[in-house]
Amino acid sequence: MADFEPFDEIAIIGIGLQGASIAINARDRGLAKRIVIGDISAENCARALELKLGQHATTNLGEAVANADCVFVAVPLGAFAAVGEVIGPALKPGAIVTDTGSTKKSVIRDLGPNIPSGVHFVPAHPIAGTEHSGPDAGLMDLFDGRWCILTPPPGANEAAVARVGDFWRATGSMIEIMEPAHHDQVLAVTSHLPHLIAFAIVGTATDMEDQLTQEVIKFSASGFRDFTRIAASDPVMWRDVFLNNREALLDCAARLSEDLARLQRAIRWGDGEEIEALIIRAREIRRALIEAKQA
Amino acid sequence: MADFEPFDEIAIIGIGLQGASIAINARDRGLAKRIVIGDISAENCARALELKLGQHATTNLGEAVANADCVFVAVPLGAFAAVGEVIGPALKPGAIVTDTGSTKKSVIRDLGPNIPSGVHFVPAHPIAGTEHSGPDAGLMDLFDGRWCILTPPPGANEAAVARVGDFWRATGSMIEIMEPAHHDQVLAVTSHLPHLIAFAIVGTATDMEDQLTQEVIKFSASGFRDFTRIAASDPVMWRDVFLNNREALLDCAARLSEDLARLQRAIRWGDGEEIEALIIRAREIRRALIEAKQA
Repeated sequence: MADFEPFDEIAIIGIGLQGASIAINARDRGLAKRIVIGDISAENCARALELKLGQHATTNLGEAVANADCVFVAVPLGAFAAVGEVIGPALKPGAIVTDTGSTKKSVIRDLGPNIPSGVHFVPAHPIAGTEHSGPDAGLMDLFDGRWCILTPPPGANEAAVARVGDFWRATGSMIEIMEPAHHDQVLAVTSHLPHLIAFAIVGTATDMEDQLTQEVIKFSASGFRDFTRIAASDPVMWRDVFLNNREALLDCAARLSEDLARLQRAIRWGDGEEIEALIIRAREIRRALIEAKQA
Repeated sequence: MADFEPFDEIAIIGIGLQGASIAINARDRGLAKRIVIGDISAENCARALELKLGQHATTNLGEAVANADCVFVAVPLGAFAAVGEVIGPALKPGAIVTDTGSTKKSVIRDLGPNIPSGVHFVPAHPIAGTEHSGPDAGLMDLFDGRWCILTPPPGANEAAVARVGDFWRATGSMIEIMEPAHHDQVLAVTSHLPHLIAFAIVGTATDMEDQLTQEVIKFSASGFRDFTRIAASDPVMWRDVFLNNREALLDCAARLSEDLARLQRAIRWGDGEEIEALIIRAREIRRALIEAKQA
């Protein structure tokens, strides 16, 4: 997107995987003339400057956002309320505040009340990530070809929404607009439940006698390995996702428990037809993904 | 392994992913002078010959094994008893019978009684696979760097066990000897449970209203996609694995259900410490895999 009119200054609050990837995109694609980083960790700030992720980095989040035309809040979900209290009074009139939070109802609940009138709030969720975390985890191509979901509140400033959408398009993302509650429901199924299960199964599989645990690691290539990759994700981030999408996630988990119980029963009673039918169905879903070019 | 003394003739019963990969290895690495294929599907036999996987292919399994020095049974677990009845009387004295079955107790139960005295039975399980199936799914490098577990019965002919081990080493595999019951327990954890869960979660995730199912596919990249890949595996093969490792698998599934219930409860009651502790532990397992070069 050669025609994205760069922001004069952006602030990135939280310089982890998402924040660092935004910084690299803004820097190398010319989406901002100046990048300021705010992170409560002095170590992260120092590392961000070493990596040339911005011109300035500070643990003072109010200072970080003071001159920004667009603020990207990229912290764990549990930190949004505290970040909002600090940056709210410091925001420049006319600025845009957006974020990268994995749940949208909680972000609107925690950050929304701290956005002063005259500042435009455009909640966003770039659906992209790796199992790595921290400032060094940033990637130029993290968002390329991935979806970014925007959940603007009713009456949101259209120009601000368009501006945020154009920024994400310039990173290679595709944009979708959704209701916050619907976003949280979709992501509970496609992301939060798979992660929950991956964490659970890695726990179960390694909660055996010592010798068996060693063998689980040795022979992990037979399926288990794929779960450990998902399960290697950032603990604080995922703890907060689970706690902030509680209702939708517990509903999905309950459905899965029921389905799993049915499958266990079919195995116990030797009902091959039911087992096979479920596997055939799962395979069809894989084909649908391939057709949708999501495989 | 340039010094593997080739078999004069091998028979491969069942020309799917495993059988075709054995054929390609035997052919291209010179592990057998002649390869005969037996498959109850005439279509598979014809395709195997088109792919030059063997010199001869027949739906008559007795004919297929009659002159073989080593027979590889590579059919779904549910077919072992029937295959045993057909090939047993046709086996050449001094021949070796081995297999690729994912469970070993059931293979010994189903195939063992049909092996005449004077024929050497060396059950084996190459832990390697893809989500693809059929004669076209064969790969030269499928076994390279992967484990092959042998579960020879007490008093097995040592030369035959060594010969089967050397064959697999020549494909690039590493060899491990195990008790059949222990093999089934380890694989229940590392392979069968992960597949069971993948099938279940794909079912759950797509058992929603139509619109939501479409969105699950659209936004699958956020975690769900990894499960669909595992869940794309062959339905008959996996149905048979589940039914033939019932006890060990149900034990693992019960443990997982308990662990999942604990995690659901922690989410419901907002116990962030417990959730985080579990995720941190899962991450450590991933590190152990990386150290063990299994990641």
